[in-house]
Amino acid sequence: MKILLIVGHPKFKDSIANKRIVERLRASDFEIDVRVLVDLYPDFKIDVEAEQIALTKVDTVIFQYPFWWYNMPGLMKIWFDEVFAHDFAYGSKGNKLKGKNFLLSFTVGGPPSAYQPIGQNHFRIGDFVKPMEQTAYLSQMHFIDPIYEHEMIYIPGVYHTREEVEARADRQAERILLALDKMIRNSF
Amino acid sequence: MKILLIVGHPKFKDSIANKRIVERLRASDFEIDVRVLVDLYPDFKIDVEAEQIALTKVDTVIFQYPFWWYNMPGLMKIWFDEVFAHDFAYGSKGNKLKGKNFLLSFTVGGPPSAYQPIGQNHFRIGDFVKPMEQTAYLSQMHFIDPIYEHEMIYIPGVYHTREEVEARADRQAERILLALDKMIRNSF
Repeated sequence: MKILLIVGHPKFKDSIANKRIVERLRASDFEIDVRVLVDLYPDFKIDVEAEQIALTKVDTVIFQYPFWWYNMPGLMKIWFDEVFAHDFAYGSKGNKLKGKNFLLSFTVGGPPSAYQPIGQNHFRIGDFVKPMEQTAYLSQMHFIDPIYEHEMIYIPGVYHTREEVEARADRQAERILLALDKMIRNSF
Repeated sequence: MKILLIVGHPKFKDSIANKRIVERLRASDFEIDVRVLVDLYPDFKIDVEAEQIALTKVDTVIFQYPFWWYNMPGLMKIWFDEVFAHDFAYGSKGNKLKGKNFLLSFTVGGPPSAYQPIGQNHFRIGDFVKPMEQTAYLSQMHFIDPIYEHEMIYIPGVYHTREEVEARADRQAERILLALDKMIRNSF
């Protein structure tokens, strides 16, 4: 199984959890093509053809990003706006992504208790990912249950320790690897 | 009532419906500060301080954009990521937007029948706007019911006429003006 990892953190170099997850996936036995959008496109000028070619070569696409405003970062949304184009991802000739796995992996700052009707964020995580879920459906991709961990934020002296966040990132990476194993078992 | 209109269409000059709606609002009797993001920031380098100052001056913020992948365009999401900052929009000192009205106005390409569980897009429009709804709540803003019209797409010789789309844009602008009237009646 060939895997593409699209990394959408706009400040990836400064990130703790997202960087750690990507490092763990890179170090795994899977064949993963890693594309860090902010490194490839610091000026936001996406090479649409290169991205589409990278997509067509794989069976599974993982989107790794921080959960910002209950959504993906703007940089990653620009990538979707341009790369998931008409007659590529959808439309009468748009079947290039058909059958590929679509896995969201994101890091959530708040605790689980915040993500419920009586919590600070009023909705559940699953409620917030509907736009991405339907993006997968319209592109005829297999939407896999998103993988995320909470409390993925470290503010020195205020909130968590770096080690706590890194341990959660390791757990998230492990869960992604288990999900990839499961996809292989289900496909072959 | 002072109003700020944030226009998030990344190809605003080429748009039909979004441009028409903005023209109608500009021509109204309301005092509206219009900020077209792609004109102000063609290089995506948002002037965060200027945007925050514009926000603090008004009572109502309208976000005008096309519904792309069941979400806002990446350009507008970058604006949220940077302008709705910690200790401005949220956090212990983040109450600068408290009490302001938050109105989404977007243009939807597909027909109403597509936006239901048995339709092509599986979810209702209201399901897709939860991230923006909760963004308003966390910022202590008043979330107003979004205003949108369907079938806001014109493909010459294939789909709709330009006049049909323009008529729908006029209707959407009228509905926004009615909503603004209602906000004034409810506030004063």
